[in-house]
Amino acid sequence: MDGAGTVSARLEAQFAFLNEADRLKSVLRATTLVDGSRPENSGEHSWHLALYALVLADQAKAGVDINRVIRMLLIHDLVEIDVGDVPIHSANGLAHGSSETMAAEQRAADRIFGLLPNDLRQDLRALWEEFEAAQTPDAIFAKSLDRVQPVMANLMSGGGTWTTYQVTADQLEQRVGTKIARGAPALWEWIKARTAAFFP
Amino acid sequence: MDGAGTVSARLEAQFAFLNEADRLKSVLRATTLVDGSRPENSGEHSWHLALYALVLADQAKAGVDINRVIRMLLIHDLVEIDVGDVPIHSANGLAHGSSETMAAEQRAADRIFGLLPNDLRQDLRALWEEFEAAQTPDAIFAKSLDRVQPVMANLMSGGGTWTTYQVTADQLEQRVGTKIARGAPALWEWIKARTAAFFP
Repeated sequence: MDGAGTVSARLEAQFAFLNEADRLKSVLRATTLVDGSRPENSGEHSWHLALYALVLADQAKAGVDINRVIRMLLIHDLVEIDVGDVPIHSANGLAHGSSETMAAEQRAADRIFGLLPNDLRQDLRALWEEFEAAQTPDAIFAKSLDRVQPVMANLMSGGGTWTTYQVTADQLEQRVGTKIARGAPALWEWIKARTAAFFP
Repeated sequence: MDGAGTVSARLEAQFAFLNEADRLKSVLRATTLVDGSRPENSGEHSWHLALYALVLADQAKAGVDINRVIRMLLIHDLVEIDVGDVPIHSANGLAHGSSETMAAEQRAADRIFGLLPNDLRQDLRALWEEFEAAQTPDAIFAKSLDRVQPVMANLMSGGGTWTTYQVTADQLEQRVGTKIARGAPALWEWIKARTAAFFP
């Protein structure tokens, strides 16, 4: 900051990003609210996940920094403003994580984080890349929570996307269970037992 | 944790709280989305505010812990599950912060935070009380952001709740401006200039 003009330009960029981020509230997910009343949007999903991190912090492995996990979860879905939500179980599990989806998400990250002042752009882009790469303890735990929350929504709403996409027990284990267990093994063990009634 | 039974009872309580929190996504605010398309709900509002804290951290005074501010903002509106949103400008500005509203919010906090295991209940209740009291630097900055975000939504959507409740420039200064300026004076100076067109 070297003068009022710079402060003002910085605030313009900060609010350009914050106003653009508002659009995440209009991106609909395959998962519904817990009461099944409507699809969840990716903005409120991001809030719920950050709250999951706050409340389930004791499920993280040693060395996980919950404050960084919360920050990651706050920004993890912003690219969906351009790309939309790609449900884990859609297209027989092949759409999520496809090279086409990942390329589109990179372009979205360029545009959306590009609205920010340089320092914030670099920090938040790096945090998002870390989440996507899922290699650090913080990112692995964040990814676990991102998989747990829709499982709980499906359990509470009577099947949800498992019914929509005719998911099998093996598919649940492969697409969801292994990712939850990687960051939060006890959590997967506990919640998997509750899914049994839906996968006879 | 002294056994699997205790871990399981703890997880039951953690998810009882997280599932109840889901209902915040169905509490509607007076403010709309930035594009004016529909009312904002308090879940997605809480996400947006936490993102505000992350992006506008440089507007906080020295000594503010942004990680604590983010945690506060994630839980600050949970009592609305029982009480509903009480708009700042409704009832000529007298409903928000009335003794009746505050008493109802205390009962809601008893019930909702009461779903958590003891340690988490105490931690999150204390964090919420700190936010409500608005005396610590962290709470004062969190309150500033909670006032800034609806101002930006009104600016972007063409007047919003200022039109709904026929708000005057003096009322805006008193109900909103003084609270933003207390925690983030440069931010209020910058954004106040942008409100001028709506208060001729």
